[in-house]
Amino acid sequence: METRENPLIGVIGGVGPYAGLDFFRNILDNTVSLRDQDHVSAILVSCPAIVPDRTGYLLGQETENPAFGMFECAKRLYGAGARYVSVACNTAHSKRIFTPFADMAGERLPGLEIVNMLETCVLHVKLNMPDVRRIGYLASQGTYASGVYYEYFRADDGFALMEPDERGRERVHEAIYSKEFGIKAHSSPVNAKARNILLYEAFKLEDRGAEAVILGCTEIPLAVNAGDFLSPVIDPGRLAARRLISLAAPEKLLTS
Amino acid sequence: METRENPLIGVIGGVGPYAGLDFFRNILDNTVSLRDQDHVSAILVSCPAIVPDRTGYLLGQETENPAFGMFECAKRLYGAGARYVSVACNTAHSKRIFTPFADMAGERLPGLEIVNMLETCVLHVKLNMPDVRRIGYLASQGTYASGVYYEYFRADDGFALMEPDERGRERVHEAIYSKEFGIKAHSSPVNAKARNILLYEAFKLEDRGAEAVILGCTEIPLAVNAGDFLSPVIDPGRLAARRLISLAAPEKLLTS
Repeated sequence: METRENPLIGVIGGVGPYAGLDFFRNILDNTVSLRDQDHVSAILVSCPAIVPDRTGYLLGQETENPAFGMFECAKRLYGAGARYVSVACNTAHSKRIFTPFADMAGERLPGLEIVNMLETCVLHVKLNMPDVRRIGYLASQGTYASGVYYEYFRADDGFALMEPDERGRERVHEAIYSKEFGIKAHSSPVNAKARNILLYEAFKLEDRGAEAVILGCTEIPLAVNAGDFLSPVIDPGRLAARRLISLAAPEKLLTS
Repeated sequence: METRENPLIGVIGGVGPYAGLDFFRNILDNTVSLRDQDHVSAILVSCPAIVPDRTGYLLGQETENPAFGMFECAKRLYGAGARYVSVACNTAHSKRIFTPFADMAGERLPGLEIVNMLETCVLHVKLNMPDVRRIGYLASQGTYASGVYYEYFRADDGFALMEPDERGRERVHEAIYSKEFGIKAHSSPVNAKARNILLYEAFKLEDRGAEAVILGCTEIPLAVNAGDFLSPVIDPGRLAARRLISLAAPEKLLTS
């Protein structure tokens, strides 16, 4: 073959399944390619039955730490040969979940590099949006309650995170989780109500002075995209996908 | 966990990459689910750099049989634990490619079951569309030239396959392969020209008496869907995805 293969990229999807697919699509969309063979080697594992709900765990409704299922997914990717791996779920990046997961992977899967989606995201803002300080973010209740975004966008670094008000947070959560119209249950296609809630709450954050809005749940980019907003929009999944390409096949990263 | 995990489904994607993603989406779309954990365990490998172009090989422009790269992909899926595997490429189902691939997998990956997408497709037509005999199909030049569809839809069984005329076949091939507007180079979003060619050639086949039209290249469902046509449309990728679910987690197969 004329094409040298890159170290295999791995994506822990299934959290949720359509969000994993969207993350994987970001890898394809951000690769320089005109034919099949130009694309990077990558693998997506989607085993949601073994990964309890992350929000449920952080809110005390699930007893098993999703870290164990995520580690099992990482083992499967490792068995397939993956070397750079990300988890396509914001809530999973809470330290209560992500630290034990990354520790297990570090100990038992030598040579595997975990690319932290939220570390990648904060680094992107610092490097490419140096003037942005007030950042709104839309997320699940687990992400809000766990304060995971405050672990990464630190006040010490000058960041001021902005969340919807209580009713808004509940609505955003419903846009993701509602059995009737939420993205997890209805993503192909997404229900208009879910999309409208997300647009409304994002605009409200902009009205309150947010200089950028983070789509802080991997389901959200299934319903809205950057073109929908006035202010800059940050999609952590897209950034992590680009980071994975830049590590495994830097010459193939599409200019953003 | 309350949910028992199914034997892992594997998809050899990357042939092409967006077609693999669409095949994987078919698995999600055809699963009964209201929450993440209801979805089946599945894994997608997309390593296009190691799988030469199938059409190119069948037309004598590539020397290496894609079967070897496909087998390497199957090994990676096997290493991750996959037990039921399909290949998301019609052209790859030509016996010149698929037979050596399936032989290698059968010999060296014990316990792995290869689900043949085109066998699944012909079985579906026999069972669910018993009156359909004249079947049009849109495909790449490799698929046409290799006669792969004639290996499965046999005249002995009463089938009469219908192809576009020479110019139509060239156009359909361009809709898939053109660097300027083809689906492989431009699938997110698809170029209108590619879509229009496919619609035009499918309608012409219907005009000539086709009782059903097969979307005989896994890129084609990225551009058109069943609702676009007057006659019944058959998407082999969707059928193979449903077959994989019915083998690995029959209770989760969505009623079609």
